[in-house]
Order: sequence, then C-alpha cells, then structure tokens
Amino acid sequence: MMQTPLLLTQMIERAEKYFPKKEIVSRTESGIQRFTYKQWGERTRRLASALEKLGVREGDKVGTLAWNHHRHLEAYFAIPCSGAVLHTINIRLSPQHVSYIVNNAEDKVLLIDSDVLPLVESIKDELTTVKAFVIMTDKEKLPETTLTPVYHYEELVAEGDPSFAFRTDLDENAPAGMCYTSATTGNPKGVIYSHRGTVLHTMALGLVDTAGVSEKDTALPVVPMFHVNAWGLPFAAVWFGTKQVLPGPYFTPKILAELMQEEKVTISAGVPTIWLGLLKELEQNKYDLSSLRYLLCGGSAAPRGMIKTFEEKYNIPFRHGYGMTETSPLTNISTTKSYQENLSKEEKLDLKAKQGILAPCLEMKVIGKEGEVKWDGKEMGELALRGPWIASEYFKDERTKDAFRDGWLYTGDVVTVDEEGNIKIVDRTKDLIKSGGEWISSVDLENALMAHEGIFEAAVVAVPSEQWQERPVACVVLKDEMKESVTKEEIYEFLKPQFAKWWLPDEILFLNEIPKTSVGKFLKRALREEIKEKIK
Amino acid sequence: MMQTPLLLTQMIERAEKYFPKKEIVSRTESGIQRFTYKQWGERTRRLASALEKLGVREGDKVGTLAWNHHRHLEAYFAIPCSGAVLHTINIRLSPQHVSYIVNNAEDKVLLIDSDVLPLVESIKDELTTVKAFVIMTDKEKLPETTLTPVYHYEELVAEGDPSFAFRTDLDENAPAGMCYTSATTGNPKGVIYSHRGTVLHTMALGLVDTAGVSEKDTALPVVPMFHVNAWGLPFAAVWFGTKQVLPGPYFTPKILAELMQEEKVTISAGVPTIWLGLLKELEQNKYDLSSLRYLLCGGSAAPRGMIKTFEEKYNIPFRHGYGMTETSPLTNISTTKSYQENLSKEEKLDLKAKQGILAPCLEMKVIGKEGEVKWDGKEMGELALRGPWIASEYFKDERTKDAFRDGWLYTGDVVTVDEEGNIKIVDRTKDLIKSGGEWISSVDLENALMAHEGIFEAAVVAVPSEQWQERPVACVVLKDEMKESVTKEEIYEFLKPQFAKWWLPDEILFLNEIPKTSVGKFLKRALREEIKEKIK
Repeated sequence: MMQTPLLLTQMIERAEKYFPKKEIVSRTESGIQRFTYKQWGERTRRLASALEKLGVREGDKVGTLAWNHHRHLEAYFAIPCSGAVLHTINIRLSPQHVSYIVNNAEDKVLLIDSDVLPLVESIKDELTTVKAFVIMTDKEKLPETTLTPVYHYEELVAEGDPSFAFRTDLDENAPAGMCYTSATTGNPKGVIYSHRGTVLHTMALGLVDTAGVSEKDTALPVVPMFHVNAWGLPFAAVWFGTKQVLPGPYFTPKILAELMQEEKVTISAGVPTIWLGLLKELEQNKYDLSSLRYLLCGGSAAPRGMIKTFEEKYNIPFRHGYGMTETSPLTNISTTKSYQENLSKEEKLDLKAKQGILAPCLEMKVIGKEGEVKWDGKEMGELALRGPWIASEYFKDERTKDAFRDGWLYTGDVVTVDEEGNIKIVDRTKDLIKSGGEWISSVDLENALMAHEGIFEAAVVAVPSEQWQERPVACVVLKDEMKESVTKEEIYEFLKPQFAKWWLPDEILFLNEIPKTSVGKFLKRALREEIKEKIK
Repeated sequence: MMQTPLLLTQMIERAEKYFPKKEIVSRTESGIQRFTYKQWGERTRRLASALEKLGVREGDKVGTLAWNHHRHLEAYFAIPCSGAVLHTINIRLSPQHVSYIVNNAEDKVLLIDSDVLPLVESIKDELTTVKAFVIMTDKEKLPETTLTPVYHYEELVAEGDPSFAFRTDLDENAPAGMCYTSATTGNPKGVIYSHRGTVLHTMALGLVDTAGVSEKDTALPVVPMFHVNAWGLPFAAVWFGTKQVLPGPYFTPKILAELMQEEKVTISAGVPTIWLGLLKELEQNKYDLSSLRYLLCGGSAAPRGMIKTFEEKYNIPFRHGYGMTETSPLTNISTTKSYQENLSKEEKLDLKAKQGILAPCLEMKVIGKEGEVKWDGKEMGELALRGPWIASEYFKDERTKDAFRDGWLYTGDVVTVDEEGNIKIVDRTKDLIKSGGEWISSVDLENALMAHEGIFEAAVVAVPSEQWQERPVACVVLKDEMKESVTKEEIYEFLKPQFAKWWLPDEILFLNEIPKTSVGKFLKRALREEIKEKIK
C-alpha cells in the first residue's frame, strides 16, 4: 500500500474541490455573515500565507482566543495545514492560567477576538514568546489596544496569497493542534493532537453508528472551538462537506434556537448546561426544530430527565457521548442496537442516559477494586483508554506519569459497563463518595434529583464523616417558579424509592447557583468549600 | 498521541465484545447455518491456533479457494490476526493461472471448498510451496482426494484453542491480505493489502456518504470473497457488528432474492451481471425486498437503464461505485449532494449512472491528451489515484512500472469528471475506440444499447479501419422473448437521437452471449477475436 500520510490538508482540499458551493454561516459582532467553502478556502490560504510572512514556521505554536466563527475556522486549517500547531485557548480561564498556557506552549502568534483583548492586555507583560498579536474583528479599524506589535486579521487576509500551497509532505505524527485541560489543582495541562490522531477521530465522527456527520447535515457546534476542537465537528464538517452554522460570541438559548430554526440545523453538540438552557427557552417560546436529527451531549453526564423532555416533549433525538481533552475527545456514544428496537420508551431512555459503546479503533478497560470489572452495569471501576486518538502525555508536564501508565490513559472517571458494553459515568474518582467501605455515585444522585420537576440543577458532594469516612450532601437549585413550593421532605420522599437507604444524602441544601468550571462542569471543589459553613 | 497500530485484530475483538449476539447466516452445501459472532469468534480463534500447529508463521501466505460462507469469513480473520497473510484465490481462473498464483505468492497452506478440489488436484504436482491442504466441508468425512497431506477443516477447528490470542503487536504496515487481478495478457498480477490500508478502507465503508455500513444493517455480499475481499464488506460488517448473509456456492438469482427477502437484507453488493440476473428474477416472481436500503454496484459500469428499472419499477435504491483490485477496492461512489435533492428523476438517474465522488483520504487526477482534464463532464482522460488504501506495486512483478508511476496508480480507466467532481467511466484505455483522431466511448454506446427494451446485454468493440484507424461494432444479446421482433434498423433508429453520427457503430451483430471474465466483466479481447470472422 502507498505510504501517503493522514493530514488535515486532505480535508480542506476535499472541501474546496467537492463542496465549493456549500455554506459556512458565521454569527459575528456585526451580524450573520455567509461564506461558501470556496471563499472560505481562499481566505484560509490567504491567512496561512500571512502567518508565514509574520514568521510562523513548521512546528511553531499559534494561539487562538476566540469564539466559534468563520475566522476561527480559517485558523483551524491555515495553521496546521502549513505545518504549524493550532493552540486553542479557553477564553474563560483566569488571566494567570492563560498566561501560563501561552508561555508553556511557547505560542509565537496569538489570534484574538476583540472582546478578549482586555484579558490579553492584562497579561501582556508576562508573555515571553509571543511575537505578534492579530485582532479578529469585522470593524474596519483596529480597536485601541496596548498590545504590540498588533495586526488586523482582515488586513492580513486581504494581503495574503489565495493560492498558498498547503503542506502535503508532513509526517502524519506531526503535531497539528493543542489544547489545555484544567486540573483540579495547579496549572492546566496541555495535550498535543497529531494530524494522524485528528484524521482518524474525524473519520470516526462520520461513521453511521457514532455521530454520522454527512454532507446532508447542517452542523451547529455550540461547544466552543476552544474546548477540545469543538469535539471535532469543524474537522468533520469540512471533510464531509457539511454546512456549518457558527454561533459566534455571547449567544443565548434564544439565539441558538433561532439559528437552529432558520438554518435548518440537523446536528448540534454541547454540554448539559447548554441543553438545559435551550429547554428553558423551548418552554417559553415556540420554534420549529423538526430539522434536528440529534443533539449530541457530552462534557459531563446528561440528566435522564432532560433527555426524556427533549425526546418525548419536543421530539428531538438525543445522543449521549463521552470524551475528554486527552481523547480528542469522542470515545463512546450512546446507541440502541438493532435488536433493542423493541425496548420500551423507558428502557430506551435508560440506554440514552448511558454514554454508550466504544468507537472503532479504540480499546478500553475498567479497573475496579479487584481488577477488571464485570459487565453487569453495577460494578464500578476507573475507565482506562487506549488508541490512535488518545494522548500519550501532557506537554512538558510532570503530571504525565499520574494519568498515563503502561500504555493506557487512566481517565479519572468511574464507570459501570452493562452487558451490551455501554459505559455509564458514575463519578470522577475524586468525587466518588466513599461511605462505610462502599462507593456512592454522586452523579446517580444528581441525575435522580434533576429528574424532579421542581429542580433546575443539583450537585452532590462528599463531606467528611467520622463514622462513615464520607457522606453525601445534595446542593439543589430550584426552578424559579417552584422556589416557594418545593420542600426538603418532598425531595427525600422522591429519592427514597430509587436508592438504598444509605445512599440518601445526609443533608439537602438549597442554593441559588452551582459553581461551574469554564466549560460548564460542576466545580465540586469550590462547592465543598462553599457548603463547609452551612453543614456545621 | 498514542502509537497504537491499525490492525484487523481490533475488528474481530470489537465484534466479540460488543456484538456477540449478532448473526452470521451462511448458506453451505448442506443448507443454511447460523452462527452468532460469539460462536464465530471462537471458531476463528480455534482456526488460528490450528493453522499455527500446521506450521503457519508470521508473514506466511495462506491461500483460500472458496465461496462466500462462514468458514471463509473465519479464514478472513484467523489468518491476518495471527500475523499471516490471507491470500484469496479466484476459483474461476484457469488451472494454469491458479498454479502460477499459488507459486508466485508462495502459499504454505491452502483452504479449499470441496467442490474446488478437482481444480486443485489437477495442478497439485506443479505447486512448489504448499505444505498442507485443508478441505472446507460440512460433511463428517473428508471427500476422497489425491491431495496430501490433507486435513478436515472442522476437525482442525474442533481441536483448536477457542481462546487463542490474536496479535496486537504487529506493524500496521505488515501485509494482511493479497489478491491477484487478471491481466489482459500474461499471468495475473498480485496486490498486497496491509493492515493499515484495510482498516482505513473499512472505516471509509462506514461513512454515511460512502457505503454507510452500520450495526443496523444486514449485509449480503454477492461479490465473491475471492474478488477484492468482497469489496471490504466482510471487514466492515465484523467491525460495525452488522448481520451478514453469505450466499455460499452456486447461488442463482432466485436464491439471492429469497435470501434477501427472508433475512431482511438491507445492503448488498455485486457486479452488473448479478443485478441484471436479479432483475430477470424479479420480473418473473414476486418478492418483498422492501428492507433493501441499497444495492451497491461496481466492477464495471452499471447501465443506466438497469438502475432506472431497479429504482422506479422496484423501488430499490442503487449506489454505483468504482474501484479495482489495486484500490482495496472502493475509491468512488455515486452521490446526490444536498442541493441536488430537487433534481428531476432523470437528472438523478444521470448522476447515479456515474461512479460518483472520491472517498475521503484519497486523491485523484485525470490525465487527458493535454494534461489534467477540465471538470466539464466531457473531456476524457486516464484516472490516476493515490492514497493509503491504494497499492504501490504488483507483488514480485515487473509490470509494476507500467501502472505505478511518480507515486500514483494509473488505473487504465478513461473517465470524465463533471462539475461536481463525479467521475464517469468512459472506457478502459485499451478499449477506447480511436476514430479519426477522436475518442469514442464503448461504454457510453453499451449503456445506450442496454437501455433498449429488447436488449439484454451489449458490448461495443473497436475493429481496425483503414480510413479512420478504428470503428465501433456493437455485439448485442436480445432478451429471449424479443429475439424474433427486434431488428438492426430499429436499434439504429433508437441510437441516432442520442449520439453524433460518427459515434454510431458500423455494424450491429446479434450474439447469444457476451464472453466474460471470471469476475463478470466483458472479455473484449475474446469478443474481438470472435467477431473477426463475422465482420469481414
């Protein structure tokens, strides 16, 4: 067989050749803009040539601090397809972490959305490797800034070469991208994505039984392009010629629902918080979202009650996935096998509340208290993964040895596996509640709580117990309209039939909000601090 | 990223873990047999251990001479997943060619269907490398044979180790399979498939926009497992957990139609001759084939008229593909892009009569008289291909240098490319008719002829012409019931509105049969010989 490398260059070239008429819809600071793949391809080549003129060379890191829009998508290909490394930076991190990340990655150029300027200005004196700042804006003039040297993205593109030749001679194991994941303590940890890994991950996204991304789809990635490559959707959409709808900065559930309706979106992807927000919107206003083929949900476990409402009340199918920054990210996706078609509605919902079976190319093992767990849907263990789109290390980081052992990534997620091979996230190893020698899943309790009609969100955390080592405490946010009527006793009555007695929380606290990470996950460390006072 | 190799072992392990209940339906000499993937996986491991006991080692070639059945599918994985090389041999080749192939490949063991025994016995004294013959049969006793040493497949499997460990440590570029393609003159040419190439090709088969093979499908490969790995369907089916229906030896159109109906087949694949046969059967007897999602057609160009009948009269969707032994084989597949949904029926048929756009991961160029052709659907040129599942050479064969040049495979097929990137096979370079400095496509004329209601098959070949260099002659097989009524003049009247005058055949000959190759393609070399007399 020929030794042709697996490179991102193939993706953009395929889009230009076979799908030049297909559309990219980009919501920007000045409204909706539309580009064909042909136009976008030319702009991307112009950008690549401009970056080269700025001194970007093979292997150099180029950082982006940006929302989901066409310019970010241009950077997604201009950078890796010219041999450099696309470093997407989470704009919701603290200035200290952003500064650490840019220096740790050794970013040479930063591409910055104009509304992110203040963040970068606040740390500019700490940045040791950046040689140029490029502002991504629709406006004709650059906004005032203390950054220097500074360039206007559109001017660079205008001066660029529309026929710039992308690299087809790179090693497929060369780095194409990188992303940092926040750690429980200390600085974020960097993960490098190779061309090979991203190409294989993208192929997996096109498989019928995973995400099935197709030319016939219209994809709206709500998940940020700085959050594990928007789960790979931008790559899949370009390669397969899928129309893309990029929601831009500061979108609301209303804006999302409108975009979905107007652009006839067929697939969308985001974290549970996003979908909870959309549900609220759907309950208030009427939309025609019948074009939706599915909503993909990942990042943290999707509550069963939410899935049920989407599917049964709004007739919007749900796919539940699993992955993390270290895994490109997709590894598992919920599925109903052909012989399960006759299951009851409730049984099917149970299946969708799990994170599904492993994608082709990957291997998993689940390590419990006594070696690999039984596939019985009950025994809990830590999920370990292996495969060509799983990272092998953290970038220049000693914490590599904690997560990567014997050729496996230990995810830190505790799961069960049912007889069909579906995993179900039970907890993070560090959030699992160890009570009297047994394990209690905070996630199971949270899902049960969030299925209560009066509860908007719920997080369950461990508190120290002299007698039992740890005991669960539930933190509950009630729906606005139910704040007066739901009582603690009612919630206990609701939980009792569903769990063994010793699983029930020792306390139920009503909060106004659950603290969250920059990517929408419950920040349990902060929550434990916050409630320390209240449970004394 | 982790450096885990792409190996066929992942496919069978995934089937065993995630799809143990799914079914393989195998039509054998003693009737229909059914196996779950769990049972099949165990049998496959037993076979692998048995072959090891017979002395098969990493890199050794093991030949199969067999129809499509469960045992052949066991060999498909037992051999490569233990590091050896699966060499599928075309049982329809001449004894001389089979003997050449076995010796050229240096097969160490041959697995033989009992009805193919006479073929192998006739050449046994010429075989220089074979150390053992294994007979695949349902019968309890071995048939009488002059082969030695000879083993009974089922006895080997019974004695084998059901927990034999497959190789997970092979280099992904190691050979997994091989297949010979017949040449116009001389001996067949061997192609080696690597694990990597086959894994990537199989992933492509699972993409929505190519073959979209899924767990929800039931696949019936009519195309023989000795013909370019049944176009990869057995690999895709195992990896994605698809139910398989293997039609076994000596099937008829009636048997196929019955299997499709009874097993609720959703996808099937075969050459045009097969589908012409099925059409005849559908015209005579009534079947419920509503489960069919599509018929995949390749090997040679599918006549537009046949596609029309399937789609419009029988409501069976058609997918038209392109590929060859050297390309694993799938490279192109017909497609209707999202913005073409509103085309008329006839325009959509025109699209389906083409071989479609290139699969992801591959590159093509089409070289005409003056460099790369325009994508205008008119300019003709030779198709060249490059990519990770395209061969880079013929095995130990000097003819490598004719087809493989500058890193590309020159296919010998002449195509046009339309504005959407769809290729249309116009001819083999050697069958193209060069008339007065212009090119006439024999395939275009054949398709037009086969759309005539009285014509069953038609082949057009070049005959030498003093004035024009070459001129076309049409060889036509009429449908049985029309043999008395269709005249030459009527056919000329039918063709005239469709072609320029100088494209019209100089002669139309009525034959009883068109000679075909062992894989169902028109054997134009033989045809030219046959008609030499008739056109004097």
